[in-house]
Amino acid sequence: MQSEHIFKQYDAELEAVRAKVLEMGSLVEQQIVDALESLVTSNPKLAEAVIKKDHLVNALEVQVDEDCSHIIARRQPTAGDLRMILMMIKTITDLERIGDEAAKIARFSQKSFETDRMWTPRFAEIKTMANLAREMLHMSLDAFARSDATKVLPIAQMDEQVDDQYQMTIRQLITFMLEDPRTISMSLEVLFVSKAIERIGDHAKNISEYVVYMVKGKDVRHITMKKMEQEAARP
Amino acid sequence: MQSEHIFKQYDAELEAVRAKVLEMGSLVEQQIVDALESLVTSNPKLAEAVIKKDHLVNALEVQVDEDCSHIIARRQPTAGDLRMILMMIKTITDLERIGDEAAKIARFSQKSFETDRMWTPRFAEIKTMANLAREMLHMSLDAFARSDATKVLPIAQMDEQVDDQYQMTIRQLITFMLEDPRTISMSLEVLFVSKAIERIGDHAKNISEYVVYMVKGKDVRHITMKKMEQEAARP
Repeated sequence: MQSEHIFKQYDAELEAVRAKVLEMGSLVEQQIVDALESLVTSNPKLAEAVIKKDHLVNALEVQVDEDCSHIIARRQPTAGDLRMILMMIKTITDLERIGDEAAKIARFSQKSFETDRMWTPRFAEIKTMANLAREMLHMSLDAFARSDATKVLPIAQMDEQVDDQYQMTIRQLITFMLEDPRTISMSLEVLFVSKAIERIGDHAKNISEYVVYMVKGKDVRHITMKKMEQEAARP
Repeated sequence: MQSEHIFKQYDAELEAVRAKVLEMGSLVEQQIVDALESLVTSNPKLAEAVIKKDHLVNALEVQVDEDCSHIIARRQPTAGDLRMILMMIKTITDLERIGDEAAKIARFSQKSFETDRMWTPRFAEIKTMANLAREMLHMSLDAFARSDATKVLPIAQMDEQVDDQYQMTIRQLITFMLEDPRTISMSLEVLFVSKAIERIGDHAKNISEYVVYMVKGKDVRHITMKKMEQEAARP
């Protein structure tokens, strides 16, 4: 009975830290949505709120890290439990960086309220790209919640789309700048926002790769799309 | 005697993975130096070599991660040993990203050999910034090798310098582009290279913060420079 009790407590501890990671994930997902919204609708209050909330994301990162190292030291997890903990330690780093990118986008949107907008950038393309990156994050968190390793391939494919759209945006911005050099400053801000979104996609992809490690014990980082396809198909 | 033997073997395992992290660190440091050299001296072969070597960095990341999870599972480390392992798991992620940034710089330098250079960018400012970022990495790896927590503050100060230089470079580039729109494409490449260097500084700073965690068990991420100063002064 004693050991059963200990096991139950251990499970509860693991579950609590898992819930914190998912909470952190939902928080940064909302940060992306709000940062974009503040940019597109020129809402300085919303931008301010995103920047202020970044410390919550950071605090969760520190907490989860502490929880994980306590569990390792006291419970000496092995196999699947250990992989889940190592996965979470890596995931929160990416989530924290996503939070930083969202705060960056919010700061750009603040800047663009201050300056006289001589040229309203075309946020439509950016919005498509941002929705894709946000969807990637949502899918990777969902894959973590369900211990589902099959999402890594569609997420990698979406990442390629985000990268393509990012390259397209840069080419477009160069054309704008050449046609009308007065758009240079604003174009660079659009470029930085696009870059932030592209990075969010990369981080979401990382998380989906950690899920595969957690579920299958296989490290699928740094492998080709072809090999990833084979790994995902394996039972 | 039996347990002494086991302890010695455990120490040897820890030492071996520590050596791998330092090897990975030296490798990415050299990658930065070579990538910059290829850019400044227009050396396409060197750029090619940097890009080719990136897989070595990636392979070391995967290896160290595997070694660390094996040690946790089999040796059940606690206290300082556990902190060192968790520190290394985080550090290699930053080292791998530094490797990516170096490869990115090498790719930009390749691109600039291909295109007709109508304007030679002023790499002098970039070189100062790059030297500073490389020095930050060197110091943080040295701090890890010596378990020295006192370097976190000077490294954080150097990071502020790198960030200032990055902002200055952007302002300069905007001026160039406005004066002569034919410089727009090349200016953007200089901008991306500067951004890569600025990121390298961030990663080096992260590593120095993990060293503090390893040595003192204190999490100094996301705190102000003032508080960091107090933490570093504490025995």
